[in-house]
Amino acid sequence: MKIMALNSGGSSIKYELYEIEKEQEISLGRGAIKQLYRDDSLWEHKINGKIFQTSMPQCSHEQGLKTIINNIVEYGPLNDLKELKAIGIKCINGGNRVNSTSLIDFQVISALQELESVTPVHNSPTLLTIDIFQRFLPQVPLVGVFETTFHQSIPLAHYTYGLPFELCQKHGIFKFGFHGNSHRYISEKISQLTTASSRVISCHLGSGSSICAIQDGKSLDISSGFTPQSGIIMSSRPGDFDPQVITYLQEKEKMSYSAINELLVKKSGLLGISGQSTEIWELEKAAKEGNERALLTIEVFVYQVKKYIGSFIALMNGLDALVFTGGIGENDSFVREKICHNLDQVGIVIDSQKNRSNDPLPKSIHNNTSQVEVWVIPTNEELMIARETYAYLQA
Amino acid sequence: MKIMALNSGGSSIKYELYEIEKEQEISLGRGAIKQLYRDDSLWEHKINGKIFQTSMPQCSHEQGLKTIINNIVEYGPLNDLKELKAIGIKCINGGNRVNSTSLIDFQVISALQELESVTPVHNSPTLLTIDIFQRFLPQVPLVGVFETTFHQSIPLAHYTYGLPFELCQKHGIFKFGFHGNSHRYISEKISQLTTASSRVISCHLGSGSSICAIQDGKSLDISSGFTPQSGIIMSSRPGDFDPQVITYLQEKEKMSYSAINELLVKKSGLLGISGQSTEIWELEKAAKEGNERALLTIEVFVYQVKKYIGSFIALMNGLDALVFTGGIGENDSFVREKICHNLDQVGIVIDSQKNRSNDPLPKSIHNNTSQVEVWVIPTNEELMIARETYAYLQA
Repeated sequence: MKIMALNSGGSSIKYELYEIEKEQEISLGRGAIKQLYRDDSLWEHKINGKIFQTSMPQCSHEQGLKTIINNIVEYGPLNDLKELKAIGIKCINGGNRVNSTSLIDFQVISALQELESVTPVHNSPTLLTIDIFQRFLPQVPLVGVFETTFHQSIPLAHYTYGLPFELCQKHGIFKFGFHGNSHRYISEKISQLTTASSRVISCHLGSGSSICAIQDGKSLDISSGFTPQSGIIMSSRPGDFDPQVITYLQEKEKMSYSAINELLVKKSGLLGISGQSTEIWELEKAAKEGNERALLTIEVFVYQVKKYIGSFIALMNGLDALVFTGGIGENDSFVREKICHNLDQVGIVIDSQKNRSNDPLPKSIHNNTSQVEVWVIPTNEELMIARETYAYLQA
Repeated sequence: MKIMALNSGGSSIKYELYEIEKEQEISLGRGAIKQLYRDDSLWEHKINGKIFQTSMPQCSHEQGLKTIINNIVEYGPLNDLKELKAIGIKCINGGNRVNSTSLIDFQVISALQELESVTPVHNSPTLLTIDIFQRFLPQVPLVGVFETTFHQSIPLAHYTYGLPFELCQKHGIFKFGFHGNSHRYISEKISQLTTASSRVISCHLGSGSSICAIQDGKSLDISSGFTPQSGIIMSSRPGDFDPQVITYLQEKEKMSYSAINELLVKKSGLLGISGQSTEIWELEKAAKEGNERALLTIEVFVYQVKKYIGSFIALMNGLDALVFTGGIGENDSFVREKICHNLDQVGIVIDSQKNRSNDPLPKSIHNNTSQVEVWVIPTNEELMIARETYAYLQA
């Protein structure tokens, strides 16, 4: 069965086509529209070892998705759009109204809309994407694969906030957690790589970041909460802070809640602290050149990751494997080293050479005195989206 | 030098008189006005082993403080108010404008007022108390002993939020932390009790709660943040949650920031989740009788404490002593046992019998296989207030 996995964000659209049956999962080709709404917008397509690229200045979601629909037939892997049995769409935040992989219908759209104001980076492009597919590919079922689904196993005491319970129930205000497709992939992958996979901490560090405690293959806890802005600091999102800072800012700066939302989504995190960049590699460069605010920003990031690692070790009463994934987690040996520094008394010791080596991923980076295995594993969210979509169609 | 230490809250005023010199600290007597603004308001005074009590229905702060001023001469320990060299007043939140023990002047009052909206439980009665003393005892210096002072040693990366840095600087929005007098007392006391006091976690658990990482006698990190509502759940305060829940509630419930403030101060925490009680012992009773929401509330509390213990172990790369203090920490063996349950892989094993025994405090409750010492130590905030006040006057 041919399935397309789609991840449509605010600045890019990624897709991958799979042939999936019970016993096999074959990637047929993949691509992306990069830098949407910019002069350097670009369509890129990889198939059978070949790469195609076309410049598409100021490409919109609609233009981008139309291009993808046309080109997966023109350039392959499809001969006809009729071969496409479903599109699995990565959906972020349906709150407590959608907590499993679902056919995208009115209910799902309404749930995504309900949370749009506090999930604008994610829900807004998803809603746009759904609308475009419904108009241009009405015959292909759209399946929503939610980032929150993997975290359904989190116990009630871990996802309940210290707020009036009835109010939280009324509005579905709980810690849902995100990056579920990535953490699920890591959970399955680490169990293939090592037997030390009963108590796992998965650090998905990228432009969005979250840290997940995985016990016996199930999400036990997650750093992110009700919105994808929470947990640890991200490129332009703040992570957790004293919530009452918000009412204080409203009192002193007369900010509306929508102005606060914009602050939390676009102006915080690495960018907010550093005042310079959303990119940690740029901050590392600046820090090495003596920029103190860049150094502070990196230290805040590392500090917050360390705290989550410690708290999840306490929750699971120990740790078997620590995994780094995501853009930063997979590529930034400097940050990995800082996070793992001075954790030998909790059983984590990495080997600097292994950490910095260009060995192909996945790779382990712990040294032989480490009680905890430490791994760097590339995530594969598209595969999880395709797999979930297939499973949904089969069921 | 005779000094009065005063802790004036919303529902009670506690005081203790000390004779302090360089080499000695003698408590001369202490008392409280309990249940302010209620029919069962009560003045209680303990001196030379005797206890005096007088019913004072609907006692206000002004009536209560006047009673204290009169009665510390009438009942002792003073012969004349002129003997009183200073009153040390516990002050909670002066933000970044007051970060050390200070003579209470216009600047201090202004700082307390600035943060009154987000610290109403604490700053409001303190301001009222200052006003009353300035009118009725104008000749006695008032010294503000701040809960945030002990946390001045916390590194910048630990107290910086993931928000725009200039905005935080402009409004003094950082993680200040509270209960500094209690945590400082624990830090000094544990070093007298054991040599295992280099890396300490102090759990002050009471109607307000906070957890402090203390390294070599200095605060390294603290659970509470910009306001005393943050950190872990408390009797009616929420602790941390995804901050953007606030803007979501404002959007969906049309709540003003002051309505949100009231929610966070009075209707959250143990009360909010349970819908029943601010008192953990009442929730324990209800939970034992099968009340699920009461049980959930206790589990949330325990879970949050556990997470902080783990995160601080990671930050300090190990732990020497874990200390419980405060109303719950000192008296609630059930909660202590639940917190320490299943932490043997991080070195914490308590002895159930020692934990439940009626041995006098301070007492240790770890068993002999525990790598970490676990202690129950009664806190003494009044002594710290008097000591700080004395040190301030000497300097």
